[in-house]
Amino acid sequence: MSSSHEAKRKYADLDPIFNPKSVAILGATDKPGKVGHAIMQNYIDVGFSGSLYPININTTGSIMGHEAYRSILDVKAKIDMAVISVPALAVPKVMDECGKAHVKGVVVVSGGFAEIGETKLQDKLVTISRKYNMPMIGPNCLGVMDIRARNDTLFLPTFKIDKPKIGGVSFVSQSGSVGSTTLDLISGAGFGLSRFISYGNAAVVDEVDILKYLSHDIHTQVIVFYMEGVKRGEEFVEVAKTATMLKPVVIIKAGSTEAGAGAAHSHTASLAGSYEAYDAVFRQYGFVRAADTDDLLDFAKIFDTQPLATGNRIAVITNGGGHGVLATDAIYHNGLTLPQLTKKTERILRKAMPPTVTIRMPLDIGGDADSARFENALDAISSDPGVDALMVITLFQTPGADDKVAESIIGYGAKREKPVVVVSMGGSYTKSHIEVMENSGIPVYSSTTAAARSLAALIGYARYRNTK
Amino acid sequence: MSSSHEAKRKYADLDPIFNPKSVAILGATDKPGKVGHAIMQNYIDVGFSGSLYPININTTGSIMGHEAYRSILDVKAKIDMAVISVPALAVPKVMDECGKAHVKGVVVVSGGFAEIGETKLQDKLVTISRKYNMPMIGPNCLGVMDIRARNDTLFLPTFKIDKPKIGGVSFVSQSGSVGSTTLDLISGAGFGLSRFISYGNAAVVDEVDILKYLSHDIHTQVIVFYMEGVKRGEEFVEVAKTATMLKPVVIIKAGSTEAGAGAAHSHTASLAGSYEAYDAVFRQYGFVRAADTDDLLDFAKIFDTQPLATGNRIAVITNGGGHGVLATDAIYHNGLTLPQLTKKTERILRKAMPPTVTIRMPLDIGGDADSARFENALDAISSDPGVDALMVITLFQTPGADDKVAESIIGYGAKREKPVVVVSMGGSYTKSHIEVMENSGIPVYSSTTAAARSLAALIGYARYRNTK
Repeated sequence: MSSSHEAKRKYADLDPIFNPKSVAILGATDKPGKVGHAIMQNYIDVGFSGSLYPININTTGSIMGHEAYRSILDVKAKIDMAVISVPALAVPKVMDECGKAHVKGVVVVSGGFAEIGETKLQDKLVTISRKYNMPMIGPNCLGVMDIRARNDTLFLPTFKIDKPKIGGVSFVSQSGSVGSTTLDLISGAGFGLSRFISYGNAAVVDEVDILKYLSHDIHTQVIVFYMEGVKRGEEFVEVAKTATMLKPVVIIKAGSTEAGAGAAHSHTASLAGSYEAYDAVFRQYGFVRAADTDDLLDFAKIFDTQPLATGNRIAVITNGGGHGVLATDAIYHNGLTLPQLTKKTERILRKAMPPTVTIRMPLDIGGDADSARFENALDAISSDPGVDALMVITLFQTPGADDKVAESIIGYGAKREKPVVVVSMGGSYTKSHIEVMENSGIPVYSSTTAAARSLAALIGYARYRNTK
Repeated sequence: MSSSHEAKRKYADLDPIFNPKSVAILGATDKPGKVGHAIMQNYIDVGFSGSLYPININTTGSIMGHEAYRSILDVKAKIDMAVISVPALAVPKVMDECGKAHVKGVVVVSGGFAEIGETKLQDKLVTISRKYNMPMIGPNCLGVMDIRARNDTLFLPTFKIDKPKIGGVSFVSQSGSVGSTTLDLISGAGFGLSRFISYGNAAVVDEVDILKYLSHDIHTQVIVFYMEGVKRGEEFVEVAKTATMLKPVVIIKAGSTEAGAGAAHSHTASLAGSYEAYDAVFRQYGFVRAADTDDLLDFAKIFDTQPLATGNRIAVITNGGGHGVLATDAIYHNGLTLPQLTKKTERILRKAMPPTVTIRMPLDIGGDADSARFENALDAISSDPGVDALMVITLFQTPGADDKVAESIIGYGAKREKPVVVVSMGGSYTKSHIEVMENSGIPVYSSTTAAARSLAALIGYARYRNTK
């Protein structure tokens, strides 16, 4: 992590950027295929409820059905936020006008700055941002999406990317491409999104500002971070200490190899620094470290839906023996353990289960198990004081498993007493049941590995919180 | 691996079991919900072209529209294979009748044998199998599925499990539940299935017989194995030496932890043995070791579709910078490396790419890249003598990526010169393009980690083959 030689900066209020009442789009145009068109289209498509002001120096009065202006200075109303998508060389001028117009924050989506060596041009933007005390996101970014506020600066074609539902996960990505693909995946990932931010070159608003803002944001339960490097190392650590005590921060640090760090530098001009140094800081301050984008989604899901637990004794209930074996391996590989059930639990299970079921962990309740058998097993095992969390493997390919099994698990999950994860995988019939469970807040994983990794992440974070 | 104290056995011809001209179903019934009903239904649903003989001691002459018999001895025609799903205690009698009727092979799906301690009852089946030289699969198994022969002994409800298409991957699973879920996943996994076998307690036909049979099977290009333990260790090693030189054998050995091994024993009475011993044997004899079921599918896909390559220099082409950084990390974490492009390749790329594209590995061709840019990059880079394989990251969320990009990659893939893998992830728009590419033999992965792991598996196996 690079140490900071920059003076401590004022706390940037990002509210006007995430939740503006009025938005100006600089570079808006009627021409399809242009970034300024895609951004306008997005604001129209998502049904932004505030005022929208397209600005284009060549306008003849109207853009996409909205009254348009040649300069933001021509707008009489107050403007909270401006999205800038004009050519790089024109950005300083229009951004200065934003400052004069008392805009409260800008998002510069235009590229052509430090990422291609144009650091002086980028410095001009920094100077303007400071001069007017007007926070800037970017340049070279996708900007922000706030699902509640229906605020969306992304310039990706709407038919190419599914929209996430409203939820408690906020996702921060230095990379636009990792941001957009992950957003698209989140739409089908079993949890909802609060805020999204792609911050590109981080010339003004950077990791420190964003982490601080989201850690105090009441709509954000979980922060998920894709990062290539941190510019203000000391401040980041300071902010992180508080943030990770308030909510889980899941982080993937790209550039974990020397070659990867080189690629990161070429990408967003990030000083990737030593991965070991980053990793040590992340561990020390309770970050939840994700190895790849699959981990990001898997971990976000369990943190968004399940209560914290500090014990590592994971009970396994399965209607397929082989997956019980794989679950056992995955549990122990991830530093977790199977519980020793009490004699009482064993007696209850012995009575409730048919004689073909052997009462032991993992509990294989048989390929003919129906919802009643799942419920009996869930009741008995979740009440056992030696059980900290549950992994329930529901294979819908078996004769006994149907809608009612999904309902039984949803019923248990609604109590939110001990964390539960479900493992379920397959084709169309199974997918329809996975969707029902995930819509009811049950995190479903497609492998016992992913489920065990996610439980280990949850428990690791809970233990960090507990030792503080 | 447990060493064998059993005399060497005769080679079991499994052809009549996989590709029978006539099948008897013992325990067939008109009653829905019964296993014997589900099996009959399956044979009717898949359109088995041979003769079908339902056998049930209580029949009144017809079952599910087919002439039925009280005993297999009442059938005048020759029967190649019998599927037995009568209660455990009745199995020896009906199986003996199969022997008398000169049936060429039996599949005993019934449970209630060694897996619940009834070893003597199981021994009776072994004796009968030997007496008539009639190979037996099972007991306590799902049996076989042969997509070409439309032969399917599975008793899972057909609406719950999607059917795979015809292909070159044969899948062997000791566990019925791992077998059925994986089958269901294969249906949407971008490769086709040749034969499937769930062999349960492995009382007669075991890992050794199956591996030997499939290694010589012309319809099988890739063997994929889920295994809990091997009973005849020395014979297995002998067969494996030949098998892995003929085709890739991807294997997952459940019970890689002490607790997991205990669970495996409880599940199929397998002597799981020391995982380290297994792993050493697998490594020595060129098996492709999978860590979990995700690996199984990922590795099967690359082996089924791509040529072998022994070099580990992986060129990355991406239309998203962040994923290029992640790909670089994944490549180095998996013992692979980025290539050093020749000056000639760099010159060609410099001419073909816009000035905003930096010519280096990973090659980030930009979020606005269209199919022409992908094609130019693919042509130049795949011709470079320093490139052994390609990872192409196509993010369909970007403005430039569309159907034509998928077509460009399919066009390159059709040449089958150097291995190529694609990384693509997202929602509905992206999924439709993934399907098109996978149907044309391009292996698509949802993360750079999975893609790099699969390339490492391909290269590791190719090197084993090359050193022999």
